[in-house]
Amino acid sequence: MGKVAVLGAGSWGTALAIVLADNGHEVALWAHRKEHADEINETRANEKYLKGVTIPERIVADSQLDRVVGGADHILLVVPTKAMREVCQNLRELIDHKVTITHASKGIEPETFKRVSEVIHEEIPEELYEDIVVLSGPSHAEEVSLRQPTTVTISSKKLEVAEKVQDLFMNRQFRVYTSPDLIGVELGGALKNIIALGAGISDGLGYGDNAKAALITRGLAEIARLGTSMGANPLTFSGLTGVGDLIVTCTSSHSRNWRAGYKLGQGNDLDEVLEEMGMVVEGVRTTKAAYQLSQTQDVEMPITSGIYRILFEKAHARDVVDQLMTRIRRHEMEDLTNILDEQMND
Amino acid sequence: MGKVAVLGAGSWGTALAIVLADNGHEVALWAHRKEHADEINETRANEKYLKGVTIPERIVADSQLDRVVGGADHILLVVPTKAMREVCQNLRELIDHKVTITHASKGIEPETFKRVSEVIHEEIPEELYEDIVVLSGPSHAEEVSLRQPTTVTISSKKLEVAEKVQDLFMNRQFRVYTSPDLIGVELGGALKNIIALGAGISDGLGYGDNAKAALITRGLAEIARLGTSMGANPLTFSGLTGVGDLIVTCTSSHSRNWRAGYKLGQGNDLDEVLEEMGMVVEGVRTTKAAYQLSQTQDVEMPITSGIYRILFEKAHARDVVDQLMTRIRRHEMEDLTNILDEQMND
Repeated sequence: MGKVAVLGAGSWGTALAIVLADNGHEVALWAHRKEHADEINETRANEKYLKGVTIPERIVADSQLDRVVGGADHILLVVPTKAMREVCQNLRELIDHKVTITHASKGIEPETFKRVSEVIHEEIPEELYEDIVVLSGPSHAEEVSLRQPTTVTISSKKLEVAEKVQDLFMNRQFRVYTSPDLIGVELGGALKNIIALGAGISDGLGYGDNAKAALITRGLAEIARLGTSMGANPLTFSGLTGVGDLIVTCTSSHSRNWRAGYKLGQGNDLDEVLEEMGMVVEGVRTTKAAYQLSQTQDVEMPITSGIYRILFEKAHARDVVDQLMTRIRRHEMEDLTNILDEQMND
Repeated sequence: MGKVAVLGAGSWGTALAIVLADNGHEVALWAHRKEHADEINETRANEKYLKGVTIPERIVADSQLDRVVGGADHILLVVPTKAMREVCQNLRELIDHKVTITHASKGIEPETFKRVSEVIHEEIPEELYEDIVVLSGPSHAEEVSLRQPTTVTISSKKLEVAEKVQDLFMNRQFRVYTSPDLIGVELGGALKNIIALGAGISDGLGYGDNAKAALITRGLAEIARLGTSMGANPLTFSGLTGVGDLIVTCTSSHSRNWRAGYKLGQGNDLDEVLEEMGMVVEGVRTTKAAYQLSQTQDVEMPITSGIYRILFEKAHARDVVDQLMTRIRRHEMEDLTNILDEQMND
């Protein structure tokens, strides 16, 4: 069993490190702050991010990137999307033999609107890696760290590299499938956070399951529309990384995007919410990126636009949701048919 | 405003009667038992089915079918699927002018495997109605009766009749969309109850949101596969009556299919569960019908088969769910691509 470098010691990075350790790999876990790495090594816990979970001995945390990356055949990136480019710039100096690079970050780079694999590709010379792989799916970190049954999808341009990474992670509780649609898998994971914010807003307003299900369903059609315009296979949005991830994120209080939305629905403004949570809420930046993309790509995204107005233009959540519930077209299939048309014309 | 006859005074029939009454229609609500009709008229409540809700004065309950149907321009059928054929046989003698017939029952007829609109069509002569309309979507009756925002889809062969019924129900909280895919709308509502049982079983076993999301996602692919083989448009399963209804049913304790599954997951057997609930659990019969259909139509339905074995062959829930989590194919897109192929070949 080789060494795997996991970059990012938040909830998801730590949970994936636990999967790898369970599978017998030596795991070096990079934490940004030395005190955080020390806490993990000394207490075998990561209390802020994975309350109550014991970190296996095979995981060694470290804040020195060179030590973490040295000798690793596989690098797993689980840092916030905003930090991805900088981490890759530091990383490229440290890779001394050909590795696989996998990322499990769900976002779109602000301003550039690039997918995470595109950012990695731009920053790390191709001769240093076999391929870039994405790992995504319906997976609360807490449940993964408790070895509860979980399924995820991984994708890369080269199937044989995806299968290699599949073997790295696969075990009895953690089931890994492959998909050829790298773009769709990345976008599903990123864009669903917008709808999770919306679901939280609906719940925070006191609306029921019927309203939330409508919002999720229409939201799914909307992110599939944007994703398709960016080159994804629309069917991917019906899979684990689309509807699966959307369900798990929108219906569980584990999800920090849902939680942020819930507080917004209760009338708090964005700055208060982000300060109070003290964790990255990817959906906020993703909403901005998707909103701007929908303008340039000329894709109709009423739910995303509504959430954008709540987040950045101080629109009242109740007004926006009420408008969304009443504006939807008379014939449901108009929207769905648009997606099919786009797909058929590919 | 004309008179509408609503046949079936359970949760959903009563909730839809309230929507119609709110819209100014006179509603005659047929209850099977005289005592039930009397209770509604005298107490303005339907405690067993809609706890705490006041029934508007415009709704008059009655156990005499001829009085309920007499003079009504619209008939809404909300009886259990098992009882549908018999109710239609009684109904056809009582219709004295051309009506619209709408049904909101989510099931498949046992043994014949017929959709509800097919049963109605067989039992009521065509010259007695303008068209048969189905109403379906993500809609807990409790929330509808509390006027919480809700969206549903209606469909019929003749769009103008669907639009007429749309106008009947549409109001500010209750949003009604039309779809041309009658088969898909009917099957989505029926088949999702199988997956709701499965979601309940997973929860009852103590598995988490990750496992449940996987089950729902794979279940959606599976019912879309069967639905497509029966003539539905696969896209309908991505809409309100597919994924929307699935989400609302699988993630809420309101759902009696989910509740039945939950008790099964906790180790109770089917007879105990059904006796304890004392209400119709459509998903049980639908599982049997879908299982048998999957055999004759040669459609692979591992989740449905697993639930069938739990319900009717005393298989252990934990063994079945563990098998489902480990048997899924290595490449997720194989399944999804099958659906696309079928769709492209239409």
